Amino acid sequence: MRALRLKEWKSEPELVEVPDPTPGPGQVVVRIGGAGACHSDLHLMDEFEPGTMPWNPPFTLGHENAGWVHALGDGVTGLSVGQPVAVFGAWGCGTCARCRVGVDPYCENPSAAPVPSGGGGLGLDGGMAEFELVPDARHVVPLPEGLDPAEAAPLTDAGLTPYHAIRRSWPKLPPGSTAVMIGVGGLGHVGVQILKATTAARVIAVDTRAEALRLAEECGADRTVTSGPAAAEEIRDATGGRGADVVLDFVGTDTTLALGVAAARTVGDLTIVGIGGGTLGVSFFSVPYEVSIATTYWGSRPELVEVLDLGARGLVRPKTTTFALGGALDAYRQMRDGTLEGRAVIVP
Amino acid sequence: MRALRLKEWKSEPELVEVPDPTPGPGQVVVRIGGAGACHSDLHLMDEFEPGTMPWNPPFTLGHENAGWVHALGDGVTGLSVGQPVAVFGAWGCGTCARCRVGVDPYCENPSAAPVPSGGGGLGLDGGMAEFELVPDARHVVPLPEGLDPAEAAPLTDAGLTPYHAIRRSWPKLPPGSTAVMIGVGGLGHVGVQILKATTAARVIAVDTRAEALRLAEECGADRTVTSGPAAAEEIRDATGGRGADVVLDFVGTDTTLALGVAAARTVGDLTIVGIGGGTLGVSFFSVPYEVSIATTYWGSRPELVEVLDLGARGLVRPKTTTFALGGALDAYRQMRDGTLEGRAVIVP
Amino acid sequence: MRALRLKEWKSEPELVEVPDPTPGPGQVVVRIGGAGACHSDLHLMDEFEPGTMPWNPPFTLGHENAGWVHALGDGVTGLSVGQPVAVFGAWGCGTCARCRVGVDPYCENPSAAPVPSGGGGLGLDGGMAEFELVPDARHVVPLPEGLDPAEAAPLTDAGLTPYHAIRRSWPKLPPGSTAVMIGVGGLGHVGVQILKATTAARVIAVDTRAEALRLAEECGADRTVTSGPAAAEEIRDATGGRGADVVLDFVGTDTTLALGVAAARTVGDLTIVGIGGGTLGVSFFSVPYEVSIATTYWGSRPELVEVLDLGARGLVRPKTTTFALGGALDAYRQMRDGTLEGRAVIVP
Amino acid sequence: MRALRLKEWKSEPELVEVPDPTPGPGQVVVRIGGAGACHSDLHLMDEFEPGTMPWNPPFTLGHENAGWVHALGDGVTGLSVGQPVAVFGAWGCGTCARCRVGVDPYCENPSAAPVPSGGGGLGLDGGMAEFELVPDARHVVPLPEGLDPAEAAPLTDAGLTPYHAIRRSWPKLPPGSTAVMIGVGGLGHVGVQILKATTAARVIAVDTRAEALRLAEECGADRTVTSGPAAAEEIRDATGGRGADVVLDFVGTDTTLALGVAAARTVGDLTIVGIGGGTLGVSFFSVPYEVSIATTYWGSRPELVEVLDLGARGLVRPKTTTFALGGALDAYRQMRDGTLEGRAVIVP
Repeated sequence: MRALRLKEWKSEPELVEVPDPTPGPGQVVVRIGGAGACHSDLHLMDEFEPGTMPWNPPFTLGHENAGWVHALGDGVTGLSVGQPVAVFGAWGCGTCARCRVGVDPYCENPSAAPVPSGGGGLGLDGGMAEFELVPDARHVVPLPEGLDPAEAAPLTDAGLTPYHAIRRSWPKLPPGSTAVMIGVGGLGHVGVQILKATTAARVIAVDTRAEALRLAEECGADRTVTSGPAAAEEIRDATGGRGADVVLDFVGTDTTLALGVAAARTVGDLTIVGIGGGTLGVSFFSVPYEVSIATTYWGSRPELVEVLDLGARGLVRPKTTTFALGGALDAYRQMRDGTLEGRAVIVP
Repeated sequence: MRALRLKEWKSEPELVEVPDPTPGPGQVVVRIGGAGACHSDLHLMDEFEPGTMPWNPPFTLGHENAGWVHALGDGVTGLSVGQPVAVFGAWGCGTCARCRVGVDPYCENPSAAPVPSGGGGLGLDGGMAEFELVPDARHVVPLPEGLDPAEAAPLTDAGLTPYHAIRRSWPKLPPGSTAVMIGVGGLGHVGVQILKATTAARVIAVDTRAEALRLAEECGADRTVTSGPAAAEEIRDATGGRGADVVLDFVGTDTTLALGVAAARTVGDLTIVGIGGGTLGVSFFSVPYEVSIATTYWGSRPELVEVLDLGARGLVRPKTTTFALGGALDAYRQMRDGTLEGRAVIVP
Repeated sequence: MRALRLKEWKSEPELVEVPDPTPGPGQVVVRIGGAGACHSDLHLMDEFEPGTMPWNPPFTLGHENAGWVHALGDGVTGLSVGQPVAVFGAWGCGTCARCRVGVDPYCENPSAAPVPSGGGGLGLDGGMAEFELVPDARHVVPLPEGLDPAEAAPLTDAGLTPYHAIRRSWPKLPPGSTAVMIGVGGLGHVGVQILKATTAARVIAVDTRAEALRLAEECGADRTVTSGPAAAEEIRDATGGRGADVVLDFVGTDTTLALGVAAARTVGDLTIVGIGGGTLGVSFFSVPYEVSIATTYWGSRPELVEVLDLGARGLVRPKTTTFALGGALDAYRQMRDGTLEGRAVIVP
Repeated sequence: MRALRLKEWKSEPELVEVPDPTPGPGQVVVRIGGAGACHSDLHLMDEFEPGTMPWNPPFTLGHENAGWVHALGDGVTGLSVGQPVAVFGAWGCGTCARCRVGVDPYCENPSAAPVPSGGGGLGLDGGMAEFELVPDARHVVPLPEGLDPAEAAPLTDAGLTPYHAIRRSWPKLPPGSTAVMIGVGGLGHVGVQILKATTAARVIAVDTRAEALRLAEECGADRTVTSGPAAAEEIRDATGGRGADVVLDFVGTDTTLALGVAAARTVGDLTIVGIGGGTLGVSFFSVPYEVSIATTYWGSRPELVEVLDLGARGLVRPKTTTFALGGALDAYRQMRDGTLEGRAVIVP
């Protein structure tokens, strides 16, 4: 089969011919119907070097995958060949307390995972190929009716990551509350949709770019705020002076983190999802009382089931542009240039 | 001022002239802008007799009230004359653990309340008058912008009661879950709106009447089911055999309670709001494992604040028909005849 | 190996020689170090008949098991031969939403389980033998330090069942609250220990038998109440008239269920664990507002991990009497006669 | 009456004669039975200056108070003269969403409070006097049987503050979890008792002082760790490498905050209670995933009711030394010298 492989750090991936995978006991081969291209793939190509991660190339790219069950290893139950499925992309040890309930991103025994702190497209062969080998059937999630693999693929990361970040804050988002989404990009615009679909909170979207704010409005944001020195005050005014109950920072720079604190209400959440390299100085008096500051990373398998339901019902629809496998390098090029509309999905 | 008073049990209320109320320390007089007429008022007129309740006529009817602050007693802070407000209608002792957090409907010291287990329109003078005396300022809730008193009035009961019943079940209503609303009347149709506004659950509405099911669809129900012997199986089919995560029974007869159990998923909720006189026999094997069966009654003051926010933003809009104070008896007549469209709101 | 097998319904089990089990892919053979004898085993021998359950004899008894890993099937990771382990006894389909997070007792696809709604000792070969074949490694739970298999065995049911029933009610058991345990038998006395170890609630134990109430006191109950017509009033008096926040009925007869309702506080929990054949009539006015009435059945795998921790630290210690495999029939005889002290554990 | 008053910033308080207070409508005068002396009183005397706080001297010190109802203002219900009571010390506006449910420390309209962000002993007259005027009866909390005012007084701050910090983390403290208490001083040693009374978590106490670690052991700590470069590793070892589920930092310096992060488990809590002036730099990669970092300040009125229950049942017992009103300055002197054993309680 053909596969888009990263052969070494700091190199362009190449589309090459590799043997078709076959499933061992408990494993599944998925015929890929869609593989999302993620900004973190650019980091893999451009920035990483030996020692950055506990794994190294070569491997096939693509960690946002969906398709159809192609072959089942011995002992796999509950799946059938041809069935449309998504691939839960975080592959932990499988036996720690986190993995036992599908929270592989926070696996507590990563050295026992297929690769430590990785998965398909992240140290192991991913979905930018005709087939992907999934090393444990528990990572294969049946698609609900009404959702095809090319639509499902971006939900496994660009959908799941904001979903997890938002779901944990639901108790702070009853009617009358306000959620602020900082950064309306590939993940953030899906986050706005998720907020609107699952809560009755007011949603304020913040970005520097006018087109991002327009996208936020399309996605249902109640109000948009242009990032800048006046943003925090604008949010405080819009919330009767109280501040936002939940701030989701999908950028993660010094500036956005500072905005998050300035905009947050006491007992609120400031959730850091974006890996923008920023640092926030937290002291007793610098943050409103009991604002919870936390990072989140990806999401859980049960949460993926829920995101897929939102997708199947049309409540969440990431903007995407489709490319053939041969066009994957074009997709990355457009991502680098900033000319890509929405998420790139490779359909082999 | 004029007031619609119930003078004795088993009688028609009368529109009579009474003195204007004046507020004592800590009290508030509200000029009424809307007073909802509730089916329970018919029970008050028709069925009750001495000993039914721990209080007796005469009193002014109307327990769903909103208006404007007219006069403030000594020591009241945080309110100003002319301000539009809703009246939280359940008036408890004010000092038990429940009342301290605004959960007066479950007051644990009712003998210390203004009247035991009652409130304005329920043993004390209510809102079917030009003014209402509210005996404790904590029951007066400022209206958010965008909501006038006539719209707000029905939210204080027909909105608050389903809201409380639904809010407690939110943790069981993530994407992929199903809520069943049995009985799409004055409260149930608002409940469907609340489910849609605050969760991403699928909503199935059940009623015997085709027009009620049409109303449910207008309110956003994903599916309607005609009540009858096949209803439970229809719900099971629609949920992949699992059953409904939450069943809200706004009727409360033997039949609807049995349907609720037959339709419920393990670890679900069966919430009994309707006072239809039914009884459900619960044994270890007659109910799916860990289905929680509970009644709910009215809601809390903090929840009323949230319902009013939903109303102000247009996310919840009870259907109403407006009457002048002189037309209140007409409103009750139409309720008795079943010809009333939506909730009757008396606007003095 | 020797095994205590139920050969047909309505018969005495027999100690017979059977082949040693060998593990298939993903399976584990456990050398038994302790197998608890449960009252439900008596029901299996005495009362069941074809059609009662979706499975039939012959099978080896014993669903409360712990021991040491003896052999690992292909593909099993995270376990090593010789390691002390408990067996999580409820074996579901493994792929439904419940099983994915270790809640096999509420499996939603039982027809895909090894046997429907059963497990080792319940339709499949259990632990009253030298070895037990566990058909999926996820049911094997490593023991924490300080707990040997004979101590761990009864925790897998007599510990896990009350633990699950109590854990779900923790939010209703802050300081100042009251929990009532009805029935201080093999499960109930462990429940009292669990309540004391995990909450600061006052614990009131109710039983008809003086020795059971003495046992409750040994286990830490703050107060004991003799079951009878005055019990509910005694509980109300002890709670300032409010009633108990949580009632755990480990008997489940008409009488105890009625006591539970009479003793419960508004917004409390009445949890039915005992299978005493009783029925409770629930109507809007017969139960305090918003008391949640629910059954519970067994517990989850993550909860078993927690119970084992309580056991290892000495916070929970079921009373037990030990028998050799050859003495298992004696154990059941003593259970029938009511002369057994605590839980019987068979140590092969 | 006599009262210990701070007359101006940067001065010693003086014991002077002042008029007895009388209650206005809705107010209560409490005859003081115990008034705790807090380290923050030293800050008031030594460090503050005009502009530090939104209020200024003169006022009577003492914000940890209990006693007996002495006089009731008009309209106060639910209390009777002579009744033993504690004073909830944080006095907010009374009408914002926080104050409505007794969460005055996080009042959202402080300019409408009796003094902004203060209370008795903090801008207004406190309890180091024969009587204290409480400006709203809702701050007066009846004592449960078995607790006298001198015992209750320190529970209102030294008990309530750690209680609030711990209570919010209960969901993260099931059996098998670990809580770390950094700083076993006047609040921390009570925190250890609260952890042991309300959870089954393992408790690790960290301090630099051997006598503090001995006190922690007396209070029930499962393990003590001397603060220093090896402390984080010692905690990781004690938790199987996972880290602590909840870290409570009652010191709040750069060093202890860094220790907190180094010791925390993914998805844990790092709660900052101590006002040690430290700052923690938070970035995506510097903190374990989803560790929630938050400050907490004091606690709520409903929580005070719960703390008092723990105190009345002997589950929480702050160490105290008693002084007469005339000895209050001695008490502060011993606090300055570090020679005071436990919390100083002034008994007029």
